[in-house]
Amino acid sequence: MALCLKPRPSGAEAVAATPGPRVCRITSHTDCGVAVTSETSFPYDDDPVFAMHRGGKIDVNPSVEVPDRAALAMAYTPGVARVCTAIADDPELASEYTWTGNTVAVVSDGTAVLGLGDIGPAAAMPVMEGKALLFKKFAGINAVPVCIDVTDVDDVVRVVAALAPSFGGINLEDISAPRCFEIEDRLRSMLDIPVMHDDQHGTAIVALAALRSAARVVGKDLAALRVVVCGAGASGIAVSKILLAAGVGEVGVADSKGMIYHGREGLNPVKAALARVTNASGHVGSVESALLGADVFIGLSGSVLAEDAITKMANGAIAFLLSNPEPEIHPDIARRHVSVVATGRSDFPNQINNSLAFPGVFRAALDVRATTITENMKLAAADAVAALVGDDAAPDYVIPSQFDERVAPAVTAAVAAQARVDGVARR
Amino acid sequence: MALCLKPRPSGAEAVAATPGPRVCRITSHTDCGVAVTSETSFPYDDDPVFAMHRGGKIDVNPSVEVPDRAALAMAYTPGVARVCTAIADDPELASEYTWTGNTVAVVSDGTAVLGLGDIGPAAAMPVMEGKALLFKKFAGINAVPVCIDVTDVDDVVRVVAALAPSFGGINLEDISAPRCFEIEDRLRSMLDIPVMHDDQHGTAIVALAALRSAARVVGKDLAALRVVVCGAGASGIAVSKILLAAGVGEVGVADSKGMIYHGREGLNPVKAALARVTNASGHVGSVESALLGADVFIGLSGSVLAEDAITKMANGAIAFLLSNPEPEIHPDIARRHVSVVATGRSDFPNQINNSLAFPGVFRAALDVRATTITENMKLAAADAVAALVGDDAAPDYVIPSQFDERVAPAVTAAVAAQARVDGVARR
Repeated sequence: MALCLKPRPSGAEAVAATPGPRVCRITSHTDCGVAVTSETSFPYDDDPVFAMHRGGKIDVNPSVEVPDRAALAMAYTPGVARVCTAIADDPELASEYTWTGNTVAVVSDGTAVLGLGDIGPAAAMPVMEGKALLFKKFAGINAVPVCIDVTDVDDVVRVVAALAPSFGGINLEDISAPRCFEIEDRLRSMLDIPVMHDDQHGTAIVALAALRSAARVVGKDLAALRVVVCGAGASGIAVSKILLAAGVGEVGVADSKGMIYHGREGLNPVKAALARVTNASGHVGSVESALLGADVFIGLSGSVLAEDAITKMANGAIAFLLSNPEPEIHPDIARRHVSVVATGRSDFPNQINNSLAFPGVFRAALDVRATTITENMKLAAADAVAALVGDDAAPDYVIPSQFDERVAPAVTAAVAAQARVDGVARR
Repeated sequence: MALCLKPRPSGAEAVAATPGPRVCRITSHTDCGVAVTSETSFPYDDDPVFAMHRGGKIDVNPSVEVPDRAALAMAYTPGVARVCTAIADDPELASEYTWTGNTVAVVSDGTAVLGLGDIGPAAAMPVMEGKALLFKKFAGINAVPVCIDVTDVDDVVRVVAALAPSFGGINLEDISAPRCFEIEDRLRSMLDIPVMHDDQHGTAIVALAALRSAARVVGKDLAALRVVVCGAGASGIAVSKILLAAGVGEVGVADSKGMIYHGREGLNPVKAALARVTNASGHVGSVESALLGADVFIGLSGSVLAEDAITKMANGAIAFLLSNPEPEIHPDIARRHVSVVATGRSDFPNQINNSLAFPGVFRAALDVRATTITENMKLAAADAVAALVGDDAAPDYVIPSQFDERVAPAVTAAVAAQARVDGVARR
């Protein structure tokens, strides 16, 4: 069937264009011949990123052929009524006979978009479209970007819960901390489809996987590691929790005021709970002071660290410098002082990238119709990623590339198996 | 780019299968090689309608190529951040640089699905998916089925309004009357994107178009017609209003209790308002009594009418028997007594089908970035459809086929032009 595709300039074409506003003719055709032609000037089109984004990055298309009246009478009225009636009688059939069994909503309220902060739902759409693109590319999952115009926690929960019949899973994205914890917790308890805030758990899964391999490189057990996490936002909290679940020896967490410790004044409930299970050494000062003799530094705060801060870590130290877009310390500088360096960037070795986790986690959850994503499923995902590195672990290779085609299948298999063990699989 | 497509049996293959539950192997592949194979028994798969519905009828796919790291850095981080910032600075850019400019939500709460009634949002999904398929097929519009798990009017309004940043338009579908009137009215006033309840206005547009041509066949002016509408639900109310706006001489509306008239006890506010502008003749009895000497009968109530009811209409009478799935009277029987018969069915002449309206109406609204769909835009759509029949109008041809490729372009052009005249176009 002819699809309605807008011609898009390649990056090279856009770069070769003359600078300044350019008149573009946009002609789109439907397969019944509607031609819409407009000539409009778009000042951003010289930028290949904007040229690529013209008209968005995803499309919805039919997945069945409807060439004639007979086919239409099956895909739509009157035939479709039989499917509706069957689902009304047996709701389990929805995952088989609608697209929901393979479709996830990528939901944001625009309050914490990339490193840009609270830019609102409309401005968040390009990121959510990009995420949707990655869901299909890496896991074959249909994903729909849903940016919502509410921020009150009750309203966010209410709106997202209302959407549940339309999707097989919910990926929460770019929702600010600490609101995101309550939002995710409440949705997980209300819904019988998987709900995961990827900024929390995708990051956590991949960080744990990288840490397993990095610990192998430096010849230490997880239980022997003292980790300092800088940043108590969505990812900092989740990373800390998964490291503890995985058996890391000690985790200490710093926020903008310094180390979080039991008894510190003014901690919000999430940080107060964290303080009870972290920082056994009782560091009360700056993150720099806690780094003296520490085995691992994980930076997730968007802050800058002086080179000095990592010169007195333990031998065989590990540094994950994950601030986006600029790592806390330049990786080349960090590499002088620690044994293993990872960042969130694709132009340095060891890119810690959520794309290694969320596709396989959701693929598995959808395939087995998991009612939720359990702690064990996340740990299984991390183990699967680490196992792909295995004995090949080296200072510059503690995490696979996001383009490594082994990753999604391995994560899918491990998470699906764990879902069944945990008794949350319905298939 | 290789897409993840599930093989689907053709109707013929499904029919040829042995009766009874059948073991199916379902294998799906992503383009990074995730193979999920499951063997499950699906008792419905002998039915070609169910076979077609396996896995749903629509997919989301990338519309840009992302073959390597460089492309990914433009479609996603860090390049995407530039697009987010631009939209944050100038929200008008969202319609250009996200898919929202070509994307509509098809929203239902499942309270009035086809002729099945209140079957709930999960069971409504196949219809909304089908509608989404038609949006792309007939108008090149991306459409996302959104079935919501709330029914309180305030909640429906709140949830749908919250979704507005994600879409360029909202198509409300299969929402029960009289709730649907308030829901649509409130959303239209809250949002600056087009909102249309298709059961109301799509039906109304096509009914008016058919009536223009039918009136031409029988040689009467619209102003000379007395119309009886049976059914005061979503479509009955909207059809009545558009006929009045178009200059029909008189419209009388019946509900399950008989004719609606000014002063009748217990009318809800919508019917009370209707009573003030309809039924100038003051009929107070049954619909059958009002049909004596009437020029036009429009049935939209899902009820059954005795043949007798239409034997004493005026000469050159017209009957639109739109109850779904069974017309109020069998069209062949009706044809003995009236000059022009139309139904909602594809197996009789003159199928009054909303697909003649909503694709072009939304295509136009998106193209000109209309803030709303005005009365005039709906009238323009009806005129455009009627003009395609023009002088060819005949008893068996008062409305084009939904497969007539002239329809969507003609409706699009007329509605876009009217939007500009009405001052609601932003492009």
